[in-house]
Amino acid sequence: MPSLFQRLLSSVVLSLIAMTIFAAESTDGSEPARLPVYSAENPLKIGMLLFDGFEMLDVFGPLEMFGMLGDRVSIVTLGMEPGLVRPRNGPAVQIERDLGDAGQLDLFIIPGGVGTRSLVNNAAMISALKTVSEATPKVASVCTGGALLARTGLLDGLEATTNKLAFDWVVSQGPQVLWIEEARWVDAGKFASSSGVSAGTDLALALIEQYFGRVTAEDVAHRTEYVWNDDPHNDPFARTLEPLEK
Amino acid sequence: MPSLFQRLLSSVVLSLIAMTIFAAESTDGSEPARLPVYSAENPLKIGMLLFDGFEMLDVFGPLEMFGMLGDRVSIVTLGMEPGLVRPRNGPAVQIERDLGDAGQLDLFIIPGGVGTRSLVNNAAMISALKTVSEATPKVASVCTGGALLARTGLLDGLEATTNKLAFDWVVSQGPQVLWIEEARWVDAGKFASSSGVSAGTDLALALIEQYFGRVTAEDVAHRTEYVWNDDPHNDPFARTLEPLEK
Repeated sequence: MPSLFQRLLSSVVLSLIAMTIFAAESTDGSEPARLPVYSAENPLKIGMLLFDGFEMLDVFGPLEMFGMLGDRVSIVTLGMEPGLVRPRNGPAVQIERDLGDAGQLDLFIIPGGVGTRSLVNNAAMISALKTVSEATPKVASVCTGGALLARTGLLDGLEATTNKLAFDWVVSQGPQVLWIEEARWVDAGKFASSSGVSAGTDLALALIEQYFGRVTAEDVAHRTEYVWNDDPHNDPFARTLEPLEK
Repeated sequence: MPSLFQRLLSSVVLSLIAMTIFAAESTDGSEPARLPVYSAENPLKIGMLLFDGFEMLDVFGPLEMFGMLGDRVSIVTLGMEPGLVRPRNGPAVQIERDLGDAGQLDLFIIPGGVGTRSLVNNAAMISALKTVSEATPKVASVCTGGALLARTGLLDGLEATTNKLAFDWVVSQGPQVLWIEEARWVDAGKFASSSGVSAGTDLALALIEQYFGRVTAEDVAHRTEYVWNDDPHNDPFARTLEPLEK
């Protein structure tokens, strides 16, 4: 007959086995795709495109949110060549690495801005964006960054959205893309895209939720005192709505 | 007897005089303080402090909003010396001018960030901030930038607010300041201060309303697809509220 100690021990072991099975099932149930666990030892590698005439909040809204994750992410800025570029009406910011030297990224972010108006016709830039985008598991555009991504052809046949005031111009850069007029952001799998400027911050938190879970995304929003619009369908600036009263 | 032409002329002149009086009265009624009209010829001169360890959105949220005004504003970044500084977890950004060479500003903005933790004890920095703040008609702090401003002593006896998670530390830097625990931002006249990180963007739009009027502020929010929290008393992260559910 087993001793009290043996019975206690087997009870604990059985409990631990049950908890492990339960935890695994719970994870399977709540997370549709199994993602790697990012940590200081294996940080989420994010590349942020920069160019002359980038829109400041397109870049720094997402970087603020991802940056809050500390050493669980590594952030590198990428461009046609290392050096300083200027946003419209703001200070110069450093491109740290050439697009051709991006290395293996987990997430590549393409911001918008007035600079995209000429870059859509820059064959070297579009080719470099295509190469990096093909090599990266997840690519996100913000605002008119969607025009650059559309020019690679990689969005053809996929749903996407973009800045609402520059909508027609962006559509003209990718007529085969399935552009959505009412969406704060669209996540079409490998390619995600947000509406104008501020919407990139909401998309960034949605991506943080995908990579790190809901609790972490809400914690980042709390620490940045940010009221997260966490519903991709809640688009206060949708083109299908009446224009805002002035 | 006056000719038809003379009668028409005097009628037009009288109408113009009446319209001028009406317009002046209307302006007096809707704008409590007469502000200069800022334009490309006379832009609103904004100085933004930068330092190692600044918080990205503290800086680029407000700059995004002011930057949308184009040549009606001129933006210069200021610091202890020209050159590159890094935010936490983001790319280097350029300080364009020494604080001692700021020139006459209309608005001086002091962001927060992890770098403030050591800067509150940097006598040269605090002295330079005091000099620029004394010479500038309007000074705004964002987040823990309030700790730097408090260390100048210029906030003593005035109402102010700051980041909610770093509240106690900031209070310890300015025990004579009348710190408000529930406020998205506080405008105490010459000195305005916002809560943490994202709150600086809401304050920036409130300042744009002061300088350029309500229609312009709403237009900037619309063009950046930003849902402006325009009520300084609406503070979703107030310390007086229960902690957010996780």
